[in-house]
Amino acid sequence: MSIITLTTDYGLKDYFVGALKGKILTEFPEAQIVDISHGIDPFNIAETSYIIGAAYSSFPKGTVHLIGVDVEINKETPQHIAMQWNDHYFICADNGILSILTQKIVPQKIVAINIHDRLPTDASELDVFKTVAVHLAKGGLLNVIGKEIKSLKEITDLKPVVTENQIKGFVTYIDNYGNVVTNITKKLFLEHSKGRAYEVRFKNKSQKTILAKYSEIAQVLKRTIKDCEGEKLVIFNDADYLEIAIYKSNPEKIGSAASLLGLNYRDVVTIDFFN
Amino acid sequence: MSIITLTTDYGLKDYFVGALKGKILTEFPEAQIVDISHGIDPFNIAETSYIIGAAYSSFPKGTVHLIGVDVEINKETPQHIAMQWNDHYFICADNGILSILTQKIVPQKIVAINIHDRLPTDASELDVFKTVAVHLAKGGLLNVIGKEIKSLKEITDLKPVVTENQIKGFVTYIDNYGNVVTNITKKLFLEHSKGRAYEVRFKNKSQKTILAKYSEIAQVLKRTIKDCEGEKLVIFNDADYLEIAIYKSNPEKIGSAASLLGLNYRDVVTIDFFN
Amino acid sequence: MSIITLTTDYGLKDYFVGALKGKILTEFPEAQIVDISHGIDPFNIAETSYIIGAAYSSFPKGTVHLIGVDVEINKETPQHIAMQWNDHYFICADNGILSILTQKIVPQKIVAINIHDRLPTDASELDVFKTVAVHLAKGGLLNVIGKEIKSLKEITDLKPVVTENQIKGFVTYIDNYGNVVTNITKKLFLEHSKGRAYEVRFKNKSQKTILAKYSEIAQVLKRTIKDCEGEKLVIFNDADYLEIAIYKSNPEKIGSAASLLGLNYRDVVTIDFFN
Repeated sequence: MSIITLTTDYGLKDYFVGALKGKILTEFPEAQIVDISHGIDPFNIAETSYIIGAAYSSFPKGTVHLIGVDVEINKETPQHIAMQWNDHYFICADNGILSILTQKIVPQKIVAINIHDRLPTDASELDVFKTVAVHLAKGGLLNVIGKEIKSLKEITDLKPVVTENQIKGFVTYIDNYGNVVTNITKKLFLEHSKGRAYEVRFKNKSQKTILAKYSEIAQVLKRTIKDCEGEKLVIFNDADYLEIAIYKSNPEKIGSAASLLGLNYRDVVTIDFFN
Repeated sequence: MSIITLTTDYGLKDYFVGALKGKILTEFPEAQIVDISHGIDPFNIAETSYIIGAAYSSFPKGTVHLIGVDVEINKETPQHIAMQWNDHYFICADNGILSILTQKIVPQKIVAINIHDRLPTDASELDVFKTVAVHLAKGGLLNVIGKEIKSLKEITDLKPVVTENQIKGFVTYIDNYGNVVTNITKKLFLEHSKGRAYEVRFKNKSQKTILAKYSEIAQVLKRTIKDCEGEKLVIFNDADYLEIAIYKSNPEKIGSAASLLGLNYRDVVTIDFFN
Repeated sequence: MSIITLTTDYGLKDYFVGALKGKILTEFPEAQIVDISHGIDPFNIAETSYIIGAAYSSFPKGTVHLIGVDVEINKETPQHIAMQWNDHYFICADNGILSILTQKIVPQKIVAINIHDRLPTDASELDVFKTVAVHLAKGGLLNVIGKEIKSLKEITDLKPVVTENQIKGFVTYIDNYGNVVTNITKKLFLEHSKGRAYEVRFKNKSQKTILAKYSEIAQVLKRTIKDCEGEKLVIFNDADYLEIAIYKSNPEKIGSAASLLGLNYRDVVTIDFFN
């Protein structure tokens, strides 16, 4: 028996998340359901990719990740998919959400879900996902609920651009503290920095040090922790992505990296290397 | 053993929801608790009715629904009630929340809760509800915790008004995407439309088609999915209520049906029929 | 086997809470995890103290409370601690959060957590907390994960100031309804009032009655419940702290105690006694 995680843009005000859990528990009373996030920016594929990519590895092998973002089938997103990848299962619409994962590791198996005809005519997209999730969490096979396919829809925009002396990335996520997360990974940085000096640039600001933990700022600035509050910093975050943060910021009171530095989704952040 | 669902206006910042779960688990360690919503607009009876009416049927028969909205007993709401209805249990103050359900199906049994004297003197309303919920989830009888009554407080305002050529309804809910839900059901529409042409009117706007799913808008407008983003549409939503929506709206970025069309709680939406 | 509760300032948008649960369940699949709040004002120690102090007693003895607020170890917060207190367990950074508890009852045992060296080098603060929480929830001993210490960091500011004829307290929490909670307890009030008349003052307003329940306002004002909506009142809340509230306020529509009365964190509220 596996855990089923939920990641949606439903928010927590509406009844959707509760109803989805009710439907899962109706079919599978022993199901263990864990919320990853229901606060995804509506229909935001890039944000969903970041969240699911950062969260999945904290769960045991075999976990089933149900992703309820932009789930409607239409001309441009013609199928629902289920994927086994790195010993985890993922269920979503084929809208590009998983391509951030499959760029790193080859999937074990992908199927286009084809159980729609077996469900009641008024079944919603989520009824489909729920049925697949319960099937997989109970140890069922992918073949039973879909037809094997070989590739996924790719998201092509917003990939980092790498040249000899520069990595150019983009803001893909703004977190609860207003910290700004880019799509530049620590791995990409290490491969290209080769020990060279560097400068991280965003808007008209820049930083020459990427910290390993937030409180290192006290050493860099040679101040007490208290006196560092409100200072900007650059760090590789827990998910190993380059993040621009305000030390101990409170978005509603002092402001955040997003508000103070004027950074928003899709804004450019570059790392320049010096020989 | 039954599931206990929670629907409140407590929000998720305060400790109330956690404390309520702690109290339930203290008395009943095996309880399976599912949140429906804690984001109900404070003291909003109409919104609570909509949420509970839309959510309950996703849960198994026998589920106990604890409703913590406007729970204080006072002169105008003199009693707490527990109701068995459609094989589900509901616990709330007798403030009209359940009348939307009982208009559709006759309750199996209603009791006025009378265990208040058996609890410690500093017991809160929620302590009462919690005790009743645990009792029912363990399979206990309604008679043990209350005295049978025959009717509930009715909400009388805001009911749809039906004439030969018109249904006049009201906005009762605004969802996470800013979509606007009315109290006109698909059932009411089908009973009165009798296949006639119709027009849905709201503010100074109107629509001649009620969609069956959001992405049908592409067929109606003869555009690509992408080019439909931001267009208004009318649909019977998952809960089978007439809803006015903006296709793939993002309330914080582009605006929503509520903000773009100026629709708010209690605003009028009409369907006119043509012979 | 014990419940593990979570109280953090992570918010519910990010993946952190889900990932934390995934990590706990990976190590301890039977763990029963309950959220107290993830909406703590970022890095706000006073608010965390209030929430944890108000919530803990709703859980069974032996519950393990993991507190993820301001967790980084640095010069000013040099250690992580685990405390057994009133038969509950608490895990947090030694930043003063628990001093509101230990002022009331002497801890049974406190240890400075020293397992950091036994974890992978990239382990985060939360990995440490998670490991300790699982250990304690499984019935493990404090001695195994830390070295006994005799005292905690104290929060010294914002304590109520008591003189012969006055108690001077401070706003420490603003709840979901916008009600304003002070750090004046019912116990403190009863010890000093000795049956004397009193007046509660805040900003340029005052009230001569502290209610026992919200709806008592109808008796005090000699009005119907309906006509009391929007009136200010003073009450000892469920957690037995003095609270200034607006009766049936809706922060987004009518305004709240915080917005209407201009009260904010750290503002002064006094009770004057008359002989």
